[in-house]
Amino acid sequence: VSATTRVNGVDVDHVSVLDRGLAYGDGVFETLLIADGRAVWWDAHLARMRRGCERLGFEMPGVDLLAQECAGLVADRTRAVLKIIVTRGDAGRGYGAPEQTHPTRIVTLHPAPNPEARDCRDGIAVHECATRLAIQPRLAGIKHLNRLEQVLARSEWREPSLREGLMRDTDGRPVCATAANLFVVRGGRLSTPSLTRCGVEGTARAWILMQADVVVRDLDWDELADADELFLASSLRGILPIARFGGRCLEPGSMTRALQQTLWREVPALAPAPERPA
Amino acid sequence: VSATTRVNGVDVDHVSVLDRGLAYGDGVFETLLIADGRAVWWDAHLARMRRGCERLGFEMPGVDLLAQECAGLVADRTRAVLKIIVTRGDAGRGYGAPEQTHPTRIVTLHPAPNPEARDCRDGIAVHECATRLAIQPRLAGIKHLNRLEQVLARSEWREPSLREGLMRDTDGRPVCATAANLFVVRGGRLSTPSLTRCGVEGTARAWILMQADVVVRDLDWDELADADELFLASSLRGILPIARFGGRCLEPGSMTRALQQTLWREVPALAPAPERPA
Repeated sequence: VSATTRVNGVDVDHVSVLDRGLAYGDGVFETLLIADGRAVWWDAHLARMRRGCERLGFEMPGVDLLAQECAGLVADRTRAVLKIIVTRGDAGRGYGAPEQTHPTRIVTLHPAPNPEARDCRDGIAVHECATRLAIQPRLAGIKHLNRLEQVLARSEWREPSLREGLMRDTDGRPVCATAANLFVVRGGRLSTPSLTRCGVEGTARAWILMQADVVVRDLDWDELADADELFLASSLRGILPIARFGGRCLEPGSMTRALQQTLWREVPALAPAPERPA
Repeated sequence: VSATTRVNGVDVDHVSVLDRGLAYGDGVFETLLIADGRAVWWDAHLARMRRGCERLGFEMPGVDLLAQECAGLVADRTRAVLKIIVTRGDAGRGYGAPEQTHPTRIVTLHPAPNPEARDCRDGIAVHECATRLAIQPRLAGIKHLNRLEQVLARSEWREPSLREGLMRDTDGRPVCATAANLFVVRGGRLSTPSLTRCGVEGTARAWILMQADVVVRDLDWDELADADELFLASSLRGILPIARFGGRCLEPGSMTRALQQTLWREVPALAPAPERPA
């Protein structure tokens, strides 16, 4: 594992054992695609991070400071993933947060996934996860550090041919993939699950909500079975049609294709290599 | 914050920024009361840690190794809290766990709470938490590192006179306190909430289950209102009668008293200072 890292502005690769991010998952994170030294959807990522810090009840570090600390790491990178973790900082033992909080800022650089042309064009096969998402409105939508449900869900398959896993909540409603949001087309209407009970409000999802008429609502699992199109959206992998899940096969449809084309024009770094504009 | 720390057997106070405990809360922890250089209920704590690692799907470090690493820290301590964190170890970005796992072992030493004689004798006032516990059977019972619900619940009150907070699950059932288990006496019967959907199976709870006839079952919140006795159990604070919650006042009862006496005889370190045997 090689990664360039910075903690509270210093070039180190470790954090205190007393950090509440480690102790309780008491913090939030973002993973941003870096293309030619710049972060894709920086504002949207940082806005979500701010919502997360507000929800957890501590002040987010200044965006300018974070931008400056990230800039040094990504300046000469043509393609990478930048991960930003912000935690409530160090503290003694116990759930109670200290009155004076000094959040920890952790930025690390990682290899970026390459959108495979075949996945983008033909679609991907996805696993049906047995691990359910618990219903917890207080933590829904934000990208906090309590991610054991995603870890358990991701551990359910090893076949490399399965590119993602679809997750339901404990009431059986489809919510998202382990690391992407879900979109469903039926009868010409585009829908995506409401994320007020669980799930993460992805930045690619937010981009799609601004591009198209999307109904944000509770979905039934049965709706996936007779959907016309299904696709996943992620800020690192873009828009991926679902071609196979649970014994069912689908063709990537026109609405998925149109959104892909718009996305690839606007964010060329999310286009598959052969189709990436020169 | 002063704490003596050891990570993977080395006297350092930091962990890698790539540790999955930090990234996803991908690990488990225990807090043990140290009395005269020895850990109270060591076997029960380590057994719970093993159940946690099994549930998360990685191999727990050897108990002998952990015992050896802890022994050096606690040998000369008359009274302290030992915290052991075990995570899935370092990895690159992404929820998928590496095939080869090298768990991280983190042991830290902290000040022990002193059971206050008045709390033990007269009972404590507890807050009714608005933050609910999500229902997630896959993670129930074990002491994993995803603890944002407890952090949010504990942030609901600042009054030092409130010593704990009672939590319900999202269906409204009483489950536990933020850092202790709940016991209810009604009509001469002792009950404690079932922890198959959420909550942590405490070691003090396990001790009580061996001492007395306890019905482990789902409770209704209304049962707390007309309970004869209510008490909390924790491996760091022992047995604490609840004297006040939600406008209701209770007297510590005979069943609570009897269990306290048995506990203090068996584990003198959990007795309040004036009543601690010489």
